Amino acid sequence: MHNHAHEPIAVPDNLNVVLLAGGVGGAKMADGLAQLLAPERLTVLVNTGDDFRHCGLMVCPDLDTVMYTLAGRANPETGWGRTGESWRTMEEVGRLGGPEWFKLGDLDLATHLTRTHLLAEGMSLTQATGQLLERLGIAARILPMSDQPAPTMIRCDEGLLPFQTWFVARGWQPAVREICLPEDVRASGQVLSALEGADLILIAPSNPFVSIEPILNVYPVREMITDLPKVVVAVSPIVAGQALKGPAAKMMGELGMAVSASAVAGYYGELIDGFVYDRRDDEVTTLLAPNTFRTDTVMQDRAGRRRLAAEILAYVVELINQ
Amino acid sequence: MHNHAHEPIAVPDNLNVVLLAGGVGGAKMADGLAQLLAPERLTVLVNTGDDFRHCGLMVCPDLDTVMYTLAGRANPETGWGRTGESWRTMEEVGRLGGPEWFKLGDLDLATHLTRTHLLAEGMSLTQATGQLLERLGIAARILPMSDQPAPTMIRCDEGLLPFQTWFVARGWQPAVREICLPEDVRASGQVLSALEGADLILIAPSNPFVSIEPILNVYPVREMITDLPKVVVAVSPIVAGQALKGPAAKMMGELGMAVSASAVAGYYGELIDGFVYDRRDDEVTTLLAPNTFRTDTVMQDRAGRRRLAAEILAYVVELINQ
Repeated sequence: MHNHAHEPIAVPDNLNVVLLAGGVGGAKMADGLAQLLAPERLTVLVNTGDDFRHCGLMVCPDLDTVMYTLAGRANPETGWGRTGESWRTMEEVGRLGGPEWFKLGDLDLATHLTRTHLLAEGMSLTQATGQLLERLGIAARILPMSDQPAPTMIRCDEGLLPFQTWFVARGWQPAVREICLPEDVRASGQVLSALEGADLILIAPSNPFVSIEPILNVYPVREMITDLPKVVVAVSPIVAGQALKGPAAKMMGELGMAVSASAVAGYYGELIDGFVYDRRDDEVTTLLAPNTFRTDTVMQDRAGRRRLAAEILAYVVELINQ
Repeated sequence: MHNHAHEPIAVPDNLNVVLLAGGVGGAKMADGLAQLLAPERLTVLVNTGDDFRHCGLMVCPDLDTVMYTLAGRANPETGWGRTGESWRTMEEVGRLGGPEWFKLGDLDLATHLTRTHLLAEGMSLTQATGQLLERLGIAARILPMSDQPAPTMIRCDEGLLPFQTWFVARGWQPAVREICLPEDVRASGQVLSALEGADLILIAPSNPFVSIEPILNVYPVREMITDLPKVVVAVSPIVAGQALKGPAAKMMGELGMAVSASAVAGYYGELIDGFVYDRRDDEVTTLLAPNTFRTDTVMQDRAGRRRLAAEILAYVVELINQ
């Protein structure tokens, strides 16, 4: 199942894939799939629970990371933000006593300004994202999980914090007591259509609690994924008992879970039909996930993203044909 | 009355001056006064009728022009915007299909981001401006005419346009039928205090209709200027029968007025005690303004601003001692 970068992959050309994605891990997985699938076969549903209004601008960190990555414009060192970024405005904001905790690069700012303008003109977030995708030359469909605001809040000892305050301003250090997701957020028609037409729902190796759960929490995403006869596969964000990036492992501990691929499989439970996890982790028992695939889940570069996506798609074809 | 730049000016050191100012002309007049008066003696009340929300940001063009000018950071070529400005974000906004008609430079953006943040945190516009003044190293007091939004609208043949749409997007070309100012806008406590303590109210050579009238329209600015025993002096924005900058002359014609210093004097009417106008213009009859001072009102450079301010202050001392 290990294919070289230029070898054709045996992907059925009518397989409609919907990827549930957060930020950096989701973006890499999306890029791997985008290298293999025809654009009309790939839809990425992106977490918008991290979105927030900052200095008047509508900032959508996960949408931006996925867009920049698929456009080949993501900063490879940080994972977030753009290549060739500069900080002239931000440095002046600092001199004027404005907020510096959330970094807004000069190029990145253009995305937020354009999006905020389009929303103010009456576009939905889905429509505004559509314009940005077109201008960035991205053919695959990237959809916000909802057109309604759906802010994730983090309860910790110091109180209930907006997600970005906890994540960036506090560097995800305050221990998490509870993740509070909004009620009554509904999926857009575009999200419903994508889910209806999906042959595979793939859960990216993103944070299960603050990247994936907010998407599942949008009505009726969880219900549609549970009820419709689709293949649902999750990819573990844990590698060798740790999170590659971000607070997933720390949160698992704070929420009373073991930090392991097994715990992730157990968390997704009956929602998934198959589970992909890293060969550096302990074996996941069939009690937790009857069908598993163990491989190297680390995506070191663009070829590595394509390699993992190809392996997963081959595994899915096996699952479907069982 | 013509003083050299380094010669001391005979300004009474207890003269409290309140300048009513719009953008470029008002900013130059403010800079001339700031070169002569102790900072605590000068308050600039700035038109905020031009303010608007653009791409989510609170943009206050006249406040910014006055601040940048007093900070020595205004672009001398345009009059608006900052020296050493760059356009990296704006160029990217263009590539993303965002609005390009209102130019937001990389440094200028920092002002709007910081202001919008401070307002979102609960500061009044006066307080937010106070922080910007401090960070920009400006000692004189610059006050927005009100802390409430007070958008000027322009009625023209194509309908009722927001000020900046008419002024910048349409390049002030649609003929003006009516200038619509909001009702029930109130002055802040700081504006009331400044007016109460003023010995001289000076109306800058700004556009009478869209820069000065919006300030007078803020309750009770006009009433306080009319009733209190102050010296009120206006400086004509017309030079040689034309506006130095902007649409003042064009608007006068469209509103059925002659384009002359006399028409400006007549427009301010009984509100003013003295009138300063350019020596290139026809003499203003005593019927329109019983007390006038004719000089070179063009402020070519910083020394020219100081020269005009010194002449006006000397004229005011004469008026007071009459």
